[in-house]
Amino acid sequence: MQLFYYDIPSAQSTKLELEKQDSRHLTKVLRKKSGDTFHVTDGKGNLFDATLGLVTSNRCEIDLAFAKAEPPPSPSLHIAIAPTKMNDRMEWFLEKATEIGVSTISPIICQRSERKKINHDRFQRIITSALQQSAQLWMPELKDQQSFDQFVKNHDAQQKFMAHCMDGTEGYLGSQLEMGSDTIIMIGPEGDFTPDEWKMAITMGFESVNLGNTRLRTETAGVYTATIFQGLQLLDLK
Amino acid sequence: MQLFYYDIPSAQSTKLELEKQDSRHLTKVLRKKSGDTFHVTDGKGNLFDATLGLVTSNRCEIDLAFAKAEPPPSPSLHIAIAPTKMNDRMEWFLEKATEIGVSTISPIICQRSERKKINHDRFQRIITSALQQSAQLWMPELKDQQSFDQFVKNHDAQQKFMAHCMDGTEGYLGSQLEMGSDTIIMIGPEGDFTPDEWKMAITMGFESVNLGNTRLRTETAGVYTATIFQGLQLLDLK
Repeated sequence: MQLFYYDIPSAQSTKLELEKQDSRHLTKVLRKKSGDTFHVTDGKGNLFDATLGLVTSNRCEIDLAFAKAEPPPSPSLHIAIAPTKMNDRMEWFLEKATEIGVSTISPIICQRSERKKINHDRFQRIITSALQQSAQLWMPELKDQQSFDQFVKNHDAQQKFMAHCMDGTEGYLGSQLEMGSDTIIMIGPEGDFTPDEWKMAITMGFESVNLGNTRLRTETAGVYTATIFQGLQLLDLK
Repeated sequence: MQLFYYDIPSAQSTKLELEKQDSRHLTKVLRKKSGDTFHVTDGKGNLFDATLGLVTSNRCEIDLAFAKAEPPPSPSLHIAIAPTKMNDRMEWFLEKATEIGVSTISPIICQRSERKKINHDRFQRIITSALQQSAQLWMPELKDQQSFDQFVKNHDAQQKFMAHCMDGTEGYLGSQLEMGSDTIIMIGPEGDFTPDEWKMAITMGFESVNLGNTRLRTETAGVYTATIFQGLQLLDLK
């Protein structure tokens, strides 16, 4: 059954009113009619059975019945990634990381970043769309963009990695991951992190890792990381 | 150093002539000049040190010196995938699968495929571009499109999987993979494989597997599969 994301006050909510934009999208673009049923999530783990109620030209009502709650994804994966020069590459990463499953995404502006500014609203819409399409109940949190320095100084987790291709002496991400631990992984821009950034990250407790034997683009590295992290938790080999 | 792919007669070749299109691309678009050095691969494991020689308006010569040979990727991964309705999604898969590493890609037309025809030359150009960008020496082989039936009846490997989301009783791909074995994995179209296709695959020795807990788009499933396959070989945990 089709799943929609809406901002819902609480798991006890039984009614939701959609204003102009969301209402028109649901009733005009997607052609839902009064009486149609679908699923709704609040992006915070709750699923609702939903029935479209009264529809007027600019708004509509949805009747909600709580169906189930899912605990947050654990362990959590936080990917900090330098936005790519070409926006569509970053948008692919956002869509795919959401499909595969990631808890938090932080756009970080690095010394070699060619793109210094992101469109947060557009990024959020892509994540929301991917959440709905992949039928998940926890929306990845999209942080505001921040500088590499700010990010490194202000974020901690049980394990912290920096993926890069500086000299090849690092361990492979998959070998270094501790199963069951909340994890931060940083991925650099097209020109990689600088030696200064590398030093700062090491000082702040990040471990330097590689992502295998081939040279991956930034957005590929992001999707690769999400896949290996989720895949290894499922295998639970360690 | 920049890597270019050209069709080269043998590892002993010491000279290569580029005709109009390739020559103009190298000298006009990429602005290489006589005397410039770069790397060249034949896509069959051989790397050459290359120097641009004589350049005329419509052709150029490249001097080649054999540098090294790499054995073919082993174990091999052959992904058979239904082309997506939207071409850009399939093209994204081709680029990412090439970056991460895959030996063979077979576009398969399934019962529920909305796209019945691919542009083989365009697909090949995307793979070539990704090969060069990711600095690899083995070009993934792009097979001609074929029907699901043809594919299933005519291809074998040490292990063969069908990834789908039919009922959820299958094992996880990562758990079922035997390390070190040449592998075929089939990925279905947007509407998944049909029960008839599933039965035929099982009869022909394919094992049904899932790709984790979330619902992945076709192209995401392809990239996910390549990542898990390569990642587990690197871990060599089993």
